[in-house]
Amino acid sequence: MMNISLTVPSMLEHAEKYFSKKEVISRTASGITRFTYADIAKRTRRLASALTKLGVKRGERVGTFAWNHHRHLEAYFGIPGMGGVLHTINIRLSGEHISYIINHADDRVLLIDAELVPLIEPLQEQLKSIKAYVIMTDDDKLPDTTLPNVYHYEDLLNEADENFEFVADIDENDPAGMCFTSATTGNPKGVVYSHRGIVLHSMALGLTDSAAVSESDVTMPVVPMFHANAWGLPFAALWFGANQVLPGPMVTPKLLAELIENEGVTLTAGVPTIWLALMKELESGSYDTSSLRAILCGGSAAPKAMIRTFETKFKIPFIHAYGMTETSPLVTLSRLKSYQTELPEEDRLEVRSTQGYVVPGVEMKVIGKDGEVKWDGHEMGELLLRGNWVADEYFMDERTNEAFRDGWLHTGDVVTVNEEGIIKIIDRTKDLIKSGGEWISSVDLENALMAHEDVFEASVVAVPHDEWQERPVACVVVKEEAKDRINKEDLMEFLQPQFVKWWLPDDIVFMDEIPKTSVGKFLKRSLRDQLKDHLKTTI
Amino acid sequence: MMNISLTVPSMLEHAEKYFSKKEVISRTASGITRFTYADIAKRTRRLASALTKLGVKRGERVGTFAWNHHRHLEAYFGIPGMGGVLHTINIRLSGEHISYIINHADDRVLLIDAELVPLIEPLQEQLKSIKAYVIMTDDDKLPDTTLPNVYHYEDLLNEADENFEFVADIDENDPAGMCFTSATTGNPKGVVYSHRGIVLHSMALGLTDSAAVSESDVTMPVVPMFHANAWGLPFAALWFGANQVLPGPMVTPKLLAELIENEGVTLTAGVPTIWLALMKELESGSYDTSSLRAILCGGSAAPKAMIRTFETKFKIPFIHAYGMTETSPLVTLSRLKSYQTELPEEDRLEVRSTQGYVVPGVEMKVIGKDGEVKWDGHEMGELLLRGNWVADEYFMDERTNEAFRDGWLHTGDVVTVNEEGIIKIIDRTKDLIKSGGEWISSVDLENALMAHEDVFEASVVAVPHDEWQERPVACVVVKEEAKDRINKEDLMEFLQPQFVKWWLPDDIVFMDEIPKTSVGKFLKRSLRDQLKDHLKTTI
Repeated sequence: MMNISLTVPSMLEHAEKYFSKKEVISRTASGITRFTYADIAKRTRRLASALTKLGVKRGERVGTFAWNHHRHLEAYFGIPGMGGVLHTINIRLSGEHISYIINHADDRVLLIDAELVPLIEPLQEQLKSIKAYVIMTDDDKLPDTTLPNVYHYEDLLNEADENFEFVADIDENDPAGMCFTSATTGNPKGVVYSHRGIVLHSMALGLTDSAAVSESDVTMPVVPMFHANAWGLPFAALWFGANQVLPGPMVTPKLLAELIENEGVTLTAGVPTIWLALMKELESGSYDTSSLRAILCGGSAAPKAMIRTFETKFKIPFIHAYGMTETSPLVTLSRLKSYQTELPEEDRLEVRSTQGYVVPGVEMKVIGKDGEVKWDGHEMGELLLRGNWVADEYFMDERTNEAFRDGWLHTGDVVTVNEEGIIKIIDRTKDLIKSGGEWISSVDLENALMAHEDVFEASVVAVPHDEWQERPVACVVVKEEAKDRINKEDLMEFLQPQFVKWWLPDDIVFMDEIPKTSVGKFLKRSLRDQLKDHLKTTI
Repeated sequence: MMNISLTVPSMLEHAEKYFSKKEVISRTASGITRFTYADIAKRTRRLASALTKLGVKRGERVGTFAWNHHRHLEAYFGIPGMGGVLHTINIRLSGEHISYIINHADDRVLLIDAELVPLIEPLQEQLKSIKAYVIMTDDDKLPDTTLPNVYHYEDLLNEADENFEFVADIDENDPAGMCFTSATTGNPKGVVYSHRGIVLHSMALGLTDSAAVSESDVTMPVVPMFHANAWGLPFAALWFGANQVLPGPMVTPKLLAELIENEGVTLTAGVPTIWLALMKELESGSYDTSSLRAILCGGSAAPKAMIRTFETKFKIPFIHAYGMTETSPLVTLSRLKSYQTELPEEDRLEVRSTQGYVVPGVEMKVIGKDGEVKWDGHEMGELLLRGNWVADEYFMDERTNEAFRDGWLHTGDVVTVNEEGIIKIIDRTKDLIKSGGEWISSVDLENALMAHEDVFEASVVAVPHDEWQERPVACVVVKEEAKDRINKEDLMEFLQPQFVKWWLPDDIVFMDEIPKTSVGKFLKRSLRDQLKDHLKTTI
């Protein structure tokens, strides 16, 4: 057999030849513009040509700091196409972290949305590696900026070669992309994507039992293109010739509902908070969403009630997925197997609300206290992954040794597996409470507490204990109006029938607020610090 | 990114874990038996174990001489799984060719259906490399045979290890399979399939816009498992967890129709003659074929009238495909693009009757007299292919140099390409008539002649000509009842309005029979020999 490198530019070349009439519907700060793939291909070749002229060398990183739009899509293909590495930067990180990752990646050029320039300007002194800032804007003129070495994206394209030939001798294991994932402590960790990984991941997205991306689709990634390649959708959609809607900045539920209706979106992807907001919008407005064949939901677990509403009220299949920046990200999808489609509605919803089973091409292993866990839906263990779109290291980072061991990515997620091979995320390893050699899920206790009508927020953490090593302590914020009527005993009584006795928290601590991370997750580390002596019997 | 070898046994391991309840419905000489993938996986591990015990070494070939059934499926995975190479032997070849390919492949073990033993017995003296004949039968006892070193497949399995671990260190470029393709002259030519090629080809079969093989499918390859891996369906169906029906020996149209109805077959694959026969059976009987979501048709071009009948009368989407033994075989599929679904019925049928465009992962180039042809649907050129499931040589065969040049497979098929990238096969290169520097399609003239009500068969060949280098001469067999009423002039008159003048044959020669190859194709080489002086003006 021939051995032809699996490369990102070859995906573009396929679309250029066979799907030249298909469209990218791009929303930028100034409105919606439509481009055919013939247009996009030429512009992408121009971008690759322009970056080459700017002096970007093989293997060097080019950063993007941008929303979801056609220019970002051009960067997705143009940067790997000229031999560079597409480094998508999360615009929501702190300035400190943005500086860190640009420097750590040694980015040579930064492609940046005009409206995001103010976020980068204050950092310019620290960004030593950047030789050129390329501003992406629909305006003819550059915005006023203090940034040095500034270029206008469209001017560069106008002067570049639309017949630029992509680098021909790419090895499929060469780096094509890069993305940083935020760590609980310390700096974000870099993940490098190979051409091979991106192509195989895109194929997985096109499989009928996966996301089934097709020429007949109109895809709309709401997940940002700076988050794990918008789950790989822009790559797969272009390769397979789908029309794609890139919804741009300042996305509102109303805008999404309108784009779905007006553009006939068939497949969209994003985190649960997006779909909660869309659900409310759909309930209040009168939108025609009949074109939607699936909503892909990942990032964190979706509430079952929401899945039910989409499936039964709006008749939109809701596909729960699991993945990480380290896994490109697609690992599992919660599609029903053919013999599960006849299950009663509640059982089907139960399957839908799990994380599903691995897509072909990914292998998993779940390791508990005594080796691989039984596939019984009860025994818990840490999820380990391997596959061609799973990272094998963090980019120049000592933390590689913690996560990548014996050829497997140790995800830090604790799961159960049932007899169908379907996984259910129970907790993060570090948030599990290890009590007397047994594991207690902080997430289960939190969900139970938050289901109480008087509870606003609850976070359960492990607190050191002399006898049991660790015991759960619940931190609870009660609703303003309930402050006077609820106490610790009420909540304990509420929990008792729901759990075995040894799972119940040793204490419930009331707080005004639970400390949170920059992306709104509970900062459990801070709670654990605060409570570390809480269960000490002697001081 | 990790770089995990893409291997055939990893596909089985996926099915074993996630689709253990799904089924193989196997028809053998003694009837239909059902196996779960859990069963098949254990039996496959036993087969791999047994072959290891028989002394088969890494990289050695194991032949199969069998119909489509579960044991053949076990060989598909068990042989590559123990490090061997699955060599599927075409049972319809001549004894001389069978001996040649077994010896050329240096097969060490031959797995053979009991009912096919009589075909091999006369060859045993020539088969020096075979150390063991393993007979596949449902009977407890071996059939009487003169073959030496005979084993009973089920006995071997019973004594083998159902927990056998597949070879772990397979390089994805290692050989996994092998198949010979018959040549116009000389011995068949061997094609070796790599693990990588088979896995990527299987992924391509799972793509939504390709064959879309899915867990919810019930696949039935009618194309034999000794023909280009039954187009890869057994591999893909197992990996993706489809139920699969393997229809066994002596397949009749009635049997196929019954299997479709009884087993709820959703996807089936075979050559046009099969579907012509099925069409007649469906027209006469009263079968429920509503489960069928697609018929895959390849091997040679399907008549448009048949495509129409399946699409409009039986409401069964008919997918025309193109490929070769050298290409694993999937190269193109004639699926409608989304914007073609609104075309008038005749235009849609016209698209359906082309060969379609390449699937993602295959690249094509069409080379005419002056380099790459225009994509105008008219200019003709030879189809060149490359991709990870395209061969790069014939196994130890000098004819490699003719077909594999400059990194491309030269298919010998002459095609046109239209603006959608859709190809249409015009002729075989060697059958094209090169007249005064222009090309004339023998196939077009044949089709036109065979559309005449009095013509039974027609074959058009190139005959040397002093002035024009070559000119077409038609060989025609007229129907018995028309022998007295039709002559050369009638046929010429019939052709005239359909072609430009210089395409018309210089002569029409009436024959009693057109010589044919062992697989029923016109033996044009023989006709060319016979007619080589037919247009000579001086002797």
